[in-house]
Amino acid sequence: MGKTDWRVYQFGNGAAEGDAGMSELLGGKGANLAEMSRLGLPVPPGFTLPTNVCHYFNQHDGQLPDALRAKVSAALKQMGPPLGVAFGDADAPLLVSVRSGSRASMPGMMDTVLNLGLNDKTVTALAAHAGDARFAWDSYRRFIQMYGDVVMGVSQDFFEEVLDDYKLEQALTGDADLEADDWQSVVERYLEIIDREADAPFPQDPMEQIWGAIAAVFRSWNNARAITYRRLHNIPDDWGTAVTVQAMVFGNLGETSATGVAFTRNPSTGENEVYGEFLPNAQGEDVVAGLRTPLHLTRAAREHSGMSDLSLQERMPEIYDELVDVFGRLEAHFGDMQDVEFTVQEGKLFILQTRSGKRTTRAAIKIAVDMVAAGQIDDGEALLRLDPSSFEQLLHPTLDPSAQIDVLCRGLPASPGAASGKVCFSADIAEVEAARGEDVILVRMETSPEDIHGMYAARAILTSRGGMTSHAAVVARGLGRPCVSGAGEMRIDYDAQIARIGGRELREGDVITIDGASGRVMQGRVPTLEPELSGDFGTIMTWAGKHQRMQVRANAETIEEAKRARRFGAAGIGLCRTEHMFFNPARILQVRRMILAQSGPQRDAALAALEPEQRADFAGLLSVMAGLPVTIRLLDPPLHEFLPSTEDALEELSELLQVSVDEVRDRIRALHEANPMLGHRGSRLAVTAPEIYAMQLRALFGAMHDVDGSEAASVEIMLPLISTAGEITHLRKLIDTEAAAWAAAHGFTPEFSVGSMIEVPGAALSADALAHALADQQGFFSFGTNDLTQTTLGLSRDDAGSFMSDYLGAGLFEADPFTTIAQDSVGVLMQITAEKASGVSPSFKLGLCGEHGGDPESVAFCDAVGIDYVSCSPFRVPIARLAAARAHLLATRTGR
Amino acid sequence: MGKTDWRVYQFGNGAAEGDAGMSELLGGKGANLAEMSRLGLPVPPGFTLPTNVCHYFNQHDGQLPDALRAKVSAALKQMGPPLGVAFGDADAPLLVSVRSGSRASMPGMMDTVLNLGLNDKTVTALAAHAGDARFAWDSYRRFIQMYGDVVMGVSQDFFEEVLDDYKLEQALTGDADLEADDWQSVVERYLEIIDREADAPFPQDPMEQIWGAIAAVFRSWNNARAITYRRLHNIPDDWGTAVTVQAMVFGNLGETSATGVAFTRNPSTGENEVYGEFLPNAQGEDVVAGLRTPLHLTRAAREHSGMSDLSLQERMPEIYDELVDVFGRLEAHFGDMQDVEFTVQEGKLFILQTRSGKRTTRAAIKIAVDMVAAGQIDDGEALLRLDPSSFEQLLHPTLDPSAQIDVLCRGLPASPGAASGKVCFSADIAEVEAARGEDVILVRMETSPEDIHGMYAARAILTSRGGMTSHAAVVARGLGRPCVSGAGEMRIDYDAQIARIGGRELREGDVITIDGASGRVMQGRVPTLEPELSGDFGTIMTWAGKHQRMQVRANAETIEEAKRARRFGAAGIGLCRTEHMFFNPARILQVRRMILAQSGPQRDAALAALEPEQRADFAGLLSVMAGLPVTIRLLDPPLHEFLPSTEDALEELSELLQVSVDEVRDRIRALHEANPMLGHRGSRLAVTAPEIYAMQLRALFGAMHDVDGSEAASVEIMLPLISTAGEITHLRKLIDTEAAAWAAAHGFTPEFSVGSMIEVPGAALSADALAHALADQQGFFSFGTNDLTQTTLGLSRDDAGSFMSDYLGAGLFEADPFTTIAQDSVGVLMQITAEKASGVSPSFKLGLCGEHGGDPESVAFCDAVGIDYVSCSPFRVPIARLAAARAHLLATRTGR
Repeated sequence: MGKTDWRVYQFGNGAAEGDAGMSELLGGKGANLAEMSRLGLPVPPGFTLPTNVCHYFNQHDGQLPDALRAKVSAALKQMGPPLGVAFGDADAPLLVSVRSGSRASMPGMMDTVLNLGLNDKTVTALAAHAGDARFAWDSYRRFIQMYGDVVMGVSQDFFEEVLDDYKLEQALTGDADLEADDWQSVVERYLEIIDREADAPFPQDPMEQIWGAIAAVFRSWNNARAITYRRLHNIPDDWGTAVTVQAMVFGNLGETSATGVAFTRNPSTGENEVYGEFLPNAQGEDVVAGLRTPLHLTRAAREHSGMSDLSLQERMPEIYDELVDVFGRLEAHFGDMQDVEFTVQEGKLFILQTRSGKRTTRAAIKIAVDMVAAGQIDDGEALLRLDPSSFEQLLHPTLDPSAQIDVLCRGLPASPGAASGKVCFSADIAEVEAARGEDVILVRMETSPEDIHGMYAARAILTSRGGMTSHAAVVARGLGRPCVSGAGEMRIDYDAQIARIGGRELREGDVITIDGASGRVMQGRVPTLEPELSGDFGTIMTWAGKHQRMQVRANAETIEEAKRARRFGAAGIGLCRTEHMFFNPARILQVRRMILAQSGPQRDAALAALEPEQRADFAGLLSVMAGLPVTIRLLDPPLHEFLPSTEDALEELSELLQVSVDEVRDRIRALHEANPMLGHRGSRLAVTAPEIYAMQLRALFGAMHDVDGSEAASVEIMLPLISTAGEITHLRKLIDTEAAAWAAAHGFTPEFSVGSMIEVPGAALSADALAHALADQQGFFSFGTNDLTQTTLGLSRDDAGSFMSDYLGAGLFEADPFTTIAQDSVGVLMQITAEKASGVSPSFKLGLCGEHGGDPESVAFCDAVGIDYVSCSPFRVPIARLAAARAHLLATRTGR
Repeated sequence: MGKTDWRVYQFGNGAAEGDAGMSELLGGKGANLAEMSRLGLPVPPGFTLPTNVCHYFNQHDGQLPDALRAKVSAALKQMGPPLGVAFGDADAPLLVSVRSGSRASMPGMMDTVLNLGLNDKTVTALAAHAGDARFAWDSYRRFIQMYGDVVMGVSQDFFEEVLDDYKLEQALTGDADLEADDWQSVVERYLEIIDREADAPFPQDPMEQIWGAIAAVFRSWNNARAITYRRLHNIPDDWGTAVTVQAMVFGNLGETSATGVAFTRNPSTGENEVYGEFLPNAQGEDVVAGLRTPLHLTRAAREHSGMSDLSLQERMPEIYDELVDVFGRLEAHFGDMQDVEFTVQEGKLFILQTRSGKRTTRAAIKIAVDMVAAGQIDDGEALLRLDPSSFEQLLHPTLDPSAQIDVLCRGLPASPGAASGKVCFSADIAEVEAARGEDVILVRMETSPEDIHGMYAARAILTSRGGMTSHAAVVARGLGRPCVSGAGEMRIDYDAQIARIGGRELREGDVITIDGASGRVMQGRVPTLEPELSGDFGTIMTWAGKHQRMQVRANAETIEEAKRARRFGAAGIGLCRTEHMFFNPARILQVRRMILAQSGPQRDAALAALEPEQRADFAGLLSVMAGLPVTIRLLDPPLHEFLPSTEDALEELSELLQVSVDEVRDRIRALHEANPMLGHRGSRLAVTAPEIYAMQLRALFGAMHDVDGSEAASVEIMLPLISTAGEITHLRKLIDTEAAAWAAAHGFTPEFSVGSMIEVPGAALSADALAHALADQQGFFSFGTNDLTQTTLGLSRDDAGSFMSDYLGAGLFEADPFTTIAQDSVGVLMQITAEKASGVSPSFKLGLCGEHGGDPESVAFCDAVGIDYVSCSPFRVPIARLAAARAHLLATRTGR
């Protein structure tokens, strides 16, 4: 190996030896300081010791290369003059910070030394310069403490003890009570501690100080905290850290000094205006501490607030102009709204840090649209700036942030939106109350399919059990109802009709408000704000449409949902769960009669009663979705999900079926299954009881017949829970027979395609055979990723709550697999399916209709797999559309 | 296309133009007749028209090539002389059969014409020759009927009607009552029918007859029956059929004629002796009809039976010697025991058919061993002759076939073996009665984990519900108890303690016998035969060991099972289900206490009580399995499987836990899961409640410590229900911590390997990551194909019974996937796993421990995948070993 050319990388004064692309060598911090400096931003000058020094240090038992010493001295010498100071100068001392900086951010894991350069002499110069002896002595004692700890290995405890003793002696209560001479006394005692505990004097020579600090920061790469952090975040141990030495600047050196934070645009509204606050003659920590009221940056803001203290614009107009100029350069360079920390030291502006500014979703949209209008970024870049998940808050009512709230308890934020209403413990009563015009919140321990009519009638749902993917959560999201689930503090006593939360009680009729976005349950009616889909939102959605490869459909059964889906820009219905139509209270009795009938005529009578109802539902849906595809999934859940458990319902059924209640109970028991998820449902029902699908098909063909003539939706018939190609072939015969019968009887030939859910691994693994069984009729697959996740991971969505938090906590799952597709298992099956299907027919259509269709990360994965569309609840359609557009943009830009 | 050289393929008289390899051209029948003729066997002569004639026939609208006519005539001319007859000769006519023969067997699907050559003249010659006018006229009328139907299209109904009318006129009741002149009269009327219905006379010219018959047989390739059969059996329509014309021979032409069937060895015992029967002066159908008592073939057999009628050996010693000689040649050629049909016509022996003879399993083993000893086949070939499934009957007690039985009802043959005992409706009582020395049959509607102690105590289990894979069936097979499940005719009334079967009743204490091999339930005690594992069986197992690549282990928990496993040649224990040890009634209370305890000390107390018990169990198992590997699977099932449902048990528990029965019930309810199969169990339990696995590990390490010094078994610790690599890493820490703690506390360092079940698709799909997490410690995978099938197909084993028979009936599953591995889905996952694991480490060990480990077809698949061992119930170890050896032999021979 040749001799290394050891060097340091200087920055400051509008130039730098490094740039943003050199983070491997200079660490993130060093590279960014270099970049800002190159941009001509007034960054306090300094230099960076690159990571290869760290490697040397680690390999040579904590020694630094000799050749580096001259480079560091030279760099230090160049830092002072532009600031009118010099390192170690007794009258005008340069003070520096020494900080770590790795390629990956490791916040707080390694050591830092500030105010380096202070000693018994320079402290006096600092006091004189700042006109503030207290500040100077406090800074010095802080430096001694920090250096003593980090460099000399003297525990913080010793220093704390001395300070406590001093305060006791002097009868002082807090640090704020100590004056300059107090701090000077403390400094003396601190220096004694160093002598005693480190068995060496505190170094007065700034060069000795700096070498000590540099070595200590390099050493801290291998402290226990940093090692653990790297293991947890998969950061390789051999990356090493860089060390940056930078001039300290002070905003408290008199009235020509100041410090502040600013956003280049209003982070709340997105308006293109300077926004922020500052304090004259202050340090950054004073702004944060809130002891003094910060002042406005602009005159307009000051006048608007009625404050008399002058703004930065009025007080330091040249600095203000320079700051505005810097903002312009920052936005031009980073192409985004920035959050900037600055300090003015004796009339000179320094930018300490800049980063993309956090903002509300509303602001994010406005900023993106404005920047496109101004030509700062293109529409694709605008989409990439937006976080699809954040759109959630725009699409539902939200709590009025100015309202007073009284939080009763918290649960899981299971379905977004805020709503108020009367507590109701029963789905039946919820329905009655809602019909009378009352706003109702359905409050249950957990919900079951029997409660759906009540969930539909309620404004929101609250449960004491169940997770983010419990029945309540999933159905609520589908219905667009706010839901808080698993509010474990709440104990419901159905008999007494009381919910107890700690010492408080909720009775039927009490008004509460729930916030499905935060999981909070509140007493009384809290005002909410309706969603406003502004013009900018529409613009964003238009751009999304332009950049989407993958289409987004909605899961919808009702006309209301279908209309909402169209409003949100859905490209069709990707999943109509026909069984939801069965839960309608007017029909459930006939459904139960159909299931429990033991004679053909009784069953036929029940089916005959259901057929016109379902036909009307289908016809409504097909009309609303004119011109778009509608995927009708035939009956999916196990029959016992429809069966009653209450005595009333049993008696009603016993009367209709003309058998005893006990007999009804027996028949229900016979349908019980150990694992209904893996049981007799979906297409399996149709194999053993084809008459149910036959009725559904007649209803569908009838509906198609009814809406024929006007522009109709195109129909895709979907078979659920398919695991072998044989099932498809078997059921296609049933479909074709019914279609032919309809054509023969009514002279109308229904046109449709037939596809299959892919929701068990066996279907994915034999997708080629399945595709062959469908390919002749524009076949399609739709991934049912809810069930596919359950079967692939052997994980029941209803039961995982008892261990999911432990799993996420221990990092055994990266994310809840019911929220984000588990790419290394479920995702592999999706890829296998896509490959096999396109092997059979390159144009074989692929969709997804699980909960994951509304999750941005999952949507991006679907784009990568090459899926044609995802389908999600109507409320999540805009989110999925934005995610789809972003995914395609990223793929195109990275040349995937 | 050049001009086809139309030809026919002659056979007979010790020579043939074709051979066994030409079935594509000559059909199976033609090729085999040629082969037998080549072997020098006295086959009635004939010739075959090859399948290309059929193609011509189909393409030319039912015409036959002209060039064929001369060939057929020439061949017919050559057939007669050796038999002293001539085709169409009025005094000594040659009669022939005309039969179809395709490449694949299509039994009975196409047409056949027999006795062709008979006409008004030759019938007289046949009568004279046979000395039996009745036979001759009956033959003629049969020929007319068959020819009329097959060739001339006259429905059988007309002939039946005529015959019925004639019998009515003559007041005759059955065909046997008709004499020669009766049949002659019938013939006259038959000829009239032909005239009338076919509008043409019955052809008297034998050459005209033969062309008609040949065309008819070719035509029958495309009859509806044959087309359907081909579609069902995937036989291509374009294969076509050959047609074979063969001389008829008659065993009823006087005392020098005879007919018989023979086995070259005794098919019941396997003894190497001529075995069979014959009738002098008779036709084959006379032997079958049973109107005359057949005679013995050998003098020894005759003398043994005390019969006075001479045997073939005594009556026709030359024919007998020739037959024995033929048998030798047949065995030498086919290398297997043959089942032969023969006819002696006027002192000349003809072999009509030979095929491998069916035999009992006992005979199959003896024959295979004898043939190897005689050098006729090698030991590998011997194994390939044996059907592993048939071994089942050798390994369990069987019903004495000579016993009288009174069958009460039938259920499914869920676990083999026969046993008698007293009916008992409760597991608890079964245990008490068994402890008193009673033989007990546990009779339940269905069983649950709570019944295991009773199932263990019982001699056999009978249930009225559940399929071949119900809890009762699976556990019974594991325990080696005979079981009949799903005996649906039986209605159990637990309250009355009565089982009703039709009009009969079984009360507690009534003695019944069940036969798990046939599913029969019988009144009273039926004598049974104990399994005899003869020396030949041992020899076969030795050969299996020599040819196995894949090892066979046993699933075992008890010392009894482990000993049986060793006796049956298991190479270790592949699955010790540690939870079975928990079901022991002495411990279940502590298990329940552990689960329901809400305070640490209560739980610790329960675990402390269980630890020494489990330690002793482990120590016993490790001692018995000295020198072999033992796979210990840590706790797998969901905790609620251990919980009580009876009031008594609830009260007992309430006392122990010192909480109310209602509280106990509440805690049990809280553990309820919607889909327990996919719930909180296996390794997931250990993530949330590590103290249970920790106890099991201490018990295991203690046991290893206890048996150390003697030759110990090697321990493999197996983690159940793993779905991600993170779980493995997480739990390996627990294992390593406990091991280190044991070593530190006791000075004994336990040595073991750690592996994972592969029982959810996600585990298979990320097997590389899982293997990485195990590879440093001789890691292994074991396919849990029961659960893997459930999750891959989304199919609950407990619930599939309601539709499985419909699925099998409609061909939607080829076989029950819980019996035979579903290769195109579950099998694909196994292959993916094997590839990924060997990618991580070529020697990564793979096993299988589901029910499929005892299924020969699944074992063969495992061999193909390259799995190292399968593990099955001890009773199925010999079956799996034979299957493994056969699979490896076949793979080696086909050069896989």
